[in-house]
Amino acid sequence: MTAEATATRRTRLTPERERELYAAVVELLREVGYEALTMDAVATRTRSSKATLYRQWKGKPELVATALRHSKPVSAADIDTGSLSGDLHEIIRCHDEAETKRDQELMRGLAHAAFQNEDLFRALRELLIEPELENFRAMVQRAVDRGELAADNPAREFVPHLLFGGALARPIIEGVDPDPDFSHRYIDAVVVPALRLS
Amino acid sequence: MTAEATATRRTRLTPERERELYAAVVELLREVGYEALTMDAVATRTRSSKATLYRQWKGKPELVATALRHSKPVSAADIDTGSLSGDLHEIIRCHDEAETKRDQELMRGLAHAAFQNEDLFRALRELLIEPELENFRAMVQRAVDRGELAADNPAREFVPHLLFGGALARPIIEGVDPDPDFSHRYIDAVVVPALRLS
Repeated sequence: MTAEATATRRTRLTPERERELYAAVVELLREVGYEALTMDAVATRTRSSKATLYRQWKGKPELVATALRHSKPVSAADIDTGSLSGDLHEIIRCHDEAETKRDQELMRGLAHAAFQNEDLFRALRELLIEPELENFRAMVQRAVDRGELAADNPAREFVPHLLFGGALARPIIEGVDPDPDFSHRYIDAVVVPALRLS
Repeated sequence: MTAEATATRRTRLTPERERELYAAVVELLREVGYEALTMDAVATRTRSSKATLYRQWKGKPELVATALRHSKPVSAADIDTGSLSGDLHEIIRCHDEAETKRDQELMRGLAHAAFQNEDLFRALRELLIEPELENFRAMVQRAVDRGELAADNPAREFVPHLLFGGALARPIIEGVDPDPDFSHRYIDAVVVPALRLS
């Protein structure tokens, strides 16, 4: 679902106003981190009332998760190159390198907060991760429909683990963050053969 | 190198005393976390002098990294089943499930501390991760020597990323920690085909 559709369904804010608000939340999150971020600060920064924020997003975990979802530079739902391998490489190409680096720091901080805060963990899974996994599964299903990927290939369920996992593991294994060159090599060396893409 | 060999080279503590000390450090780490752990607390808990601790391990990051290395239930260096697939499954079998769960919490806290503390990051990489990666590379090299794995298979360099990555990604993707069943399925579905093991 697009930001616009969500806005129409859930709020009386204009889509522009909503985008502005999400951007401000993500900006605040980068500045102070999840724990120190307050609904008061969001209200001040976005010139909203706290009542509006709570009415629209229920609470801080939900607002943060929704803001992150709408600030992603690209969604798997927007990519359809005609092959799964092409789609995976295109995801990497759509991420600006400098922005990815900033996002890695943001997501590391959030992951830490989420493992200590069950409400945030649940909100991130429901509002950010699950919807994107749905888009991902649709991308993989298109490869099955095209006959590129066997429907019963046991690696099929692990495509998200492979992609996220490689990026998560690199700082620990090599001491450096993933970059586009790493990601493209990893897709060709590991993901494509594991899926036996034809 | 075994704990014994390290002890002989670096210290005049008996191997038993050293093991006791490492266990106490890991216990403290679980109780209070890296940031709150002090060399004073380690000295008290282990009835050592702080001077001894600093002389032997240089500082807190090095002591913590070395203690973790010596408290691992199993090292890739101790496993040689005769096939790479067998070795990978054996690593999983050697990890007690309850202990793995405790370790995941410990390592998540440490990862967070390490991304904020360069000395800890470096110590963990040098004293814990790199030595274990060396054992891992030796395990993969044996598969090449046996003719199971092509020396120029591009997935070869990514074996550690695959194994650690799957475990790191599962809580984010599925909302649950990895367990042995997941790990065995992941090895068969993803790692074995990516390596085209014969």
